[in-house]
Amino acid sequence: MKKVAVIMGSDSDWGVVKAAVETLKGYGVPVEAHVMSAHRTPGLAAAFAGSAREKGFGVLIAAAGKAAHLAGVLAAHTTLPVIGLPVAAAQLDGLDALLATVQMPSGIPVATVAIDGAKNAALLAVQMLAIEDEGLADRLAAAKREMEAGVVEKDRKLQEQY
Amino acid sequence: MKKVAVIMGSDSDWGVVKAAVETLKGYGVPVEAHVMSAHRTPGLAAAFAGSAREKGFGVLIAAAGKAAHLAGVLAAHTTLPVIGLPVAAAQLDGLDALLATVQMPSGIPVATVAIDGAKNAALLAVQMLAIEDEGLADRLAAAKREMEAGVVEKDRKLQEQY
Amino acid sequence: MKKVAVIMGSDSDWGVVKAAVETLKGYGVPVEAHVMSAHRTPGLAAAFAGSAREKGFGVLIAAAGKAAHLAGVLAAHTTLPVIGLPVAAAQLDGLDALLATVQMPSGIPVATVAIDGAKNAALLAVQMLAIEDEGLADRLAAAKREMEAGVVEKDRKLQEQY
Amino acid sequence: MKKVAVIMGSDSDWGVVKAAVETLKGYGVPVEAHVMSAHRTPGLAAAFAGSAREKGFGVLIAAAGKAAHLAGVLAAHTTLPVIGLPVAAAQLDGLDALLATVQMPSGIPVATVAIDGAKNAALLAVQMLAIEDEGLADRLAAAKREMEAGVVEKDRKLQEQY
Amino acid sequence: MKKVAVIMGSDSDWGVVKAAVETLKGYGVPVEAHVMSAHRTPGLAAAFAGSAREKGFGVLIAAAGKAAHLAGVLAAHTTLPVIGLPVAAAQLDGLDALLATVQMPSGIPVATVAIDGAKNAALLAVQMLAIEDEGLADRLAAAKREMEAGVVEKDRKLQEQY
Amino acid sequence: MKKVAVIMGSDSDWGVVKAAVETLKGYGVPVEAHVMSAHRTPGLAAAFAGSAREKGFGVLIAAAGKAAHLAGVLAAHTTLPVIGLPVAAAQLDGLDALLATVQMPSGIPVATVAIDGAKNAALLAVQMLAIEDEGLADRLAAAKREMEAGVVEKDRKLQEQY
Amino acid sequence: MKKVAVIMGSDSDWGVVKAAVETLKGYGVPVEAHVMSAHRTPGLAAAFAGSAREKGFGVLIAAAGKAAHLAGVLAAHTTLPVIGLPVAAAQLDGLDALLATVQMPSGIPVATVAIDGAKNAALLAVQMLAIEDEGLADRLAAAKREMEAGVVEKDRKLQEQY
Amino acid sequence: MKKVAVIMGSDSDWGVVKAAVETLKGYGVPVEAHVMSAHRTPGLAAAFAGSAREKGFGVLIAAAGKAAHLAGVLAAHTTLPVIGLPVAAAQLDGLDALLATVQMPSGIPVATVAIDGAKNAALLAVQMLAIEDEGLADRLAAAKREMEAGVVEKDRKLQEQY
Repeated sequence: MKKVAVIMGSDSDWGVVKAAVETLKGYGVPVEAHVMSAHRTPGLAAAFAGSAREKGFGVLIAAAGKAAHLAGVLAAHTTLPVIGLPVAAAQLDGLDALLATVQMPSGIPVATVAIDGAKNAALLAVQMLAIEDEGLADRLAAAKREMEAGVVEKDRKLQEQY
Repeated sequence: MKKVAVIMGSDSDWGVVKAAVETLKGYGVPVEAHVMSAHRTPGLAAAFAGSAREKGFGVLIAAAGKAAHLAGVLAAHTTLPVIGLPVAAAQLDGLDALLATVQMPSGIPVATVAIDGAKNAALLAVQMLAIEDEGLADRLAAAKREMEAGVVEKDRKLQEQY
Repeated sequence: MKKVAVIMGSDSDWGVVKAAVETLKGYGVPVEAHVMSAHRTPGLAAAFAGSAREKGFGVLIAAAGKAAHLAGVLAAHTTLPVIGLPVAAAQLDGLDALLATVQMPSGIPVATVAIDGAKNAALLAVQMLAIEDEGLADRLAAAKREMEAGVVEKDRKLQEQY
Repeated sequence: MKKVAVIMGSDSDWGVVKAAVETLKGYGVPVEAHVMSAHRTPGLAAAFAGSAREKGFGVLIAAAGKAAHLAGVLAAHTTLPVIGLPVAAAQLDGLDALLATVQMPSGIPVATVAIDGAKNAALLAVQMLAIEDEGLADRLAAAKREMEAGVVEKDRKLQEQY
Repeated sequence: MKKVAVIMGSDSDWGVVKAAVETLKGYGVPVEAHVMSAHRTPGLAAAFAGSAREKGFGVLIAAAGKAAHLAGVLAAHTTLPVIGLPVAAAQLDGLDALLATVQMPSGIPVATVAIDGAKNAALLAVQMLAIEDEGLADRLAAAKREMEAGVVEKDRKLQEQY
Repeated sequence: MKKVAVIMGSDSDWGVVKAAVETLKGYGVPVEAHVMSAHRTPGLAAAFAGSAREKGFGVLIAAAGKAAHLAGVLAAHTTLPVIGLPVAAAQLDGLDALLATVQMPSGIPVATVAIDGAKNAALLAVQMLAIEDEGLADRLAAAKREMEAGVVEKDRKLQEQY
Repeated sequence: MKKVAVIMGSDSDWGVVKAAVETLKGYGVPVEAHVMSAHRTPGLAAAFAGSAREKGFGVLIAAAGKAAHLAGVLAAHTTLPVIGLPVAAAQLDGLDALLATVQMPSGIPVATVAIDGAKNAALLAVQMLAIEDEGLADRLAAAKREMEAGVVEKDRKLQEQY
Repeated sequence: MKKVAVIMGSDSDWGVVKAAVETLKGYGVPVEAHVMSAHRTPGLAAAFAGSAREKGFGVLIAAAGKAAHLAGVLAAHTTLPVIGLPVAAAQLDGLDALLATVQMPSGIPVATVAIDGAKNAALLAVQMLAIEDEGLADRLAAAKREMEAGVVEKDRKLQEQY
């Protein structure tokens, strides 16, 4: 199975990003996590993205806050799909990171998920890998049913206690 | 090759969405375009998404404006990756569509692209299909080189005329 | 009297939503509270809305945060009035939920109240039921007078202490 | 059947508001349209709202732009449901009108629809009147099916021409 | 000297509004503080504004949050200048109150100050009263010089400690 | 009677500002219009504000767009009330000018009116001058009644034609 | 004298960017204009910035719209000051470009000017070069006086015609 | 070497601004810190800026919150580059300060950095001084390499612990 890379612009994003790594592991998807910055280590980020396909990666996830360029910089150097995870920083609630991640110019898409939506970034990566992988698709479908059952159970509990 | 479905909430979105269909065809990806509404034909949308994988689709693209629920509704009924394309309507410049598309709750991701970013929605779908398809990946890489050459050529022209 | 359904997208919304249920009970309106998700249990939500009128419901209240699709999804499946209650989540202060709830396309209205405005959602439901119910209208009028008297009393206290 | 009042803050809103009046007439709902301003004719607006129920109105629709207080002022003087229709003015795309209409304090709800969403304001009024009126509910259901058929037809046409 | 009325929409605004009352008293301006609501006691608010000039008021200050209609409602019933003080509530940081206060339609101005800017609301009222009152103008000028001296002193301290 | 100064940051604002000058003249208020910039002629602006009271001005109106500092700069140099009129420029619809005008720090208020609200800026100035001027107050009251009659007339016409 | 590079992300930005080039030439500053994209020609942009100082550049100006990463990408590869010029694109009025340009993470500043503020970007570059260049500083001072005289002249004309 | 002035509008900004002073000292750049207000001590601010160049300053940094006029007021009185540092105040997360700082009119640029981005304001000043100062440029380059090494080290640690 292709690997997924989870790259964060700063190790201070780890609190948010961790959920993506754990979700991927939960699906049995091989994952590598890295701290790499579009602005502080641009060469490393470019090199990583440029060789990601040949190193066996299938999807890149990029988490960054503020003027979040990381996903765009990775996307510039690869033809793999790049998932952008905007992280809410101290000000503006992540609106800056969202716009800086999603409003990409024509030709270089970034698949953007919700602000701080680390688990969804991971699930989206799994969905991409599952396009051609029925086993993985089955696990996603099972999780979906479980999630549905969880809501039904919560509804049942609400009926009881109320 | 898996097919891509391009679904728009209203036929008035066709002016924007057309570019996605054409881009997909340009890559030789089989594509179906549909008008389907999360609110006006919810049953059809749910049924389409629910059977999309078994009908040979690999990716769904959903274009909608205002309180854009279409991508989320499709994503609720499939484990295929769903790409959300927010369309700018008469007011608020598409900010409503962007937030309604991207801020999905945990468990149901939507891969959101820029407001009116139809071409990028298509390219993202191609990138997803190209994870396991080297031929397609090669065509993406070629297009990337062409795009780069185009910018270089524009820079050369600017030097001449200025 | 018709019943009112109070539906929340997640049991984590209960802290906000509770006030709606209590307000309805205070008016003697029969109420059912449910956890149901537009994205995690779309079939249940559609089925609930689709049969709500025949089961004796008169109004549906839908509370959700982020890309809040719940009210719209219910509205798609019923001709009963649906009240949308946007819930403020961790980021963006509920602006995303407000826009995703209120900016509905032509044909499928959602009666939207203020962010976290659970009591007002309930009062609006009571007002709807009171259109043809003079007893209920009288209770609303009495509450309005009481509210007015409360403000007058607070003004009097301010005069004293200041 | 109860009447619906459609009140606009300025006759310049008529271009938007007209669709509400026509939609109500299409459903056979008796309708009165008025120009009345929260700020220029506050006494008239208060008096109108204060006597609306006894004059046979069931729902009030209030359309206003900018610091749109009209719906709130009407709601302060009646226990009938008041539907707020924010109108986009020259600046800010109607965001000011939306917030000034929807963010009502606890105790005085306004049922807010989309910016410039005149048809939806009318449909919401019809839905409220149809809670206890099966004939009207049937017409709403028929319109819903027609709307659905319209989308299906548009999808069919798209298949043909593409 | 004319009196200034400081009116708040809810006694929960008192924490913010208090500074306005104290500033006015500091300038020896006679002041009355009231709790009065545009929505809960509309008749009282209208009556108060309508008779304010003859009761010896020169300026009204209106503090309110969310869909802050209070200043506009008072302004509709008087030709005295009305100062609007938007109060930040639980969500949206007071942006809703600011827009609902400042974006008044042509014909009915509200003199809006900063979100939670209670002291400035009071100073603005003093400035209005001081147009024709040289003694008051002198006190404002003295306070301005004091404020300036305070900044100079803070700068001096910064030089010492740094 | 005290004079009112209408100061604009750029002569390109004249199209908006003109209505303020005309409204003031309509009330018989002596008015001077000036082009003066907080950034391009800061010394002139400071000098003008600093001597405005002794030159017989009672109120200053400052119109500016973008990072609209003009009203604040004038207010820094006078104890007269300064009315800020935010002007919508090419981008951001005047939101920048609104925030830069209204969000003044404690100690230096600016009485802000709606974006492009030139007529209201003038009316607010007249209201300030009318605090102690019964004749002017009577004219304001007459205009208010006329405005009310105008709305009533428009309502009557709507009844006729519809 | 050091050269200034004016780099735009797309040749469609030339309409805005041209004013920067002309302003620089007007000050006799040697200037090079280039089309270079953070996403389409990332390698060229990195190489250009990386060698800019040794090639005699003193300041880089980067103009881009939407998720404007160009200034940040250049700044990542040089220790020269980089001026970011956000360009308003089809949607969101340039707010996305502004936030994506200005909200840079600690360590990599971008000197951001107003949306579409091409002339100011150039003037800021001249100011930087003029820190150690008295001749250039004198020309800036002369232009400042001229600008001031221009405003004074416009004020004089307004007095005449009015 | 030219000096850098760090000017804050209020001593309450010192918590944010301190980092700018320390960063400048770390680079051996002579620095003066001042409390000076565009609105409370406009004359001092104007005088300071007007004589800054002749007193040996090369760059001015201006930190202010809310309707942040300080940078613009300084820029109006000098031809030195002025760096604007928007400070987040109690409401609106600094968006008001950002727009009031960056959206300067043509002719008077302000080099704006991120909200609360004090360290970047200082680094930008150092970059400006380093245009003609190779020693300083070398120190900036060294810091850049250190920053890069720091990220690489954090990435290494992440690999270990995970």
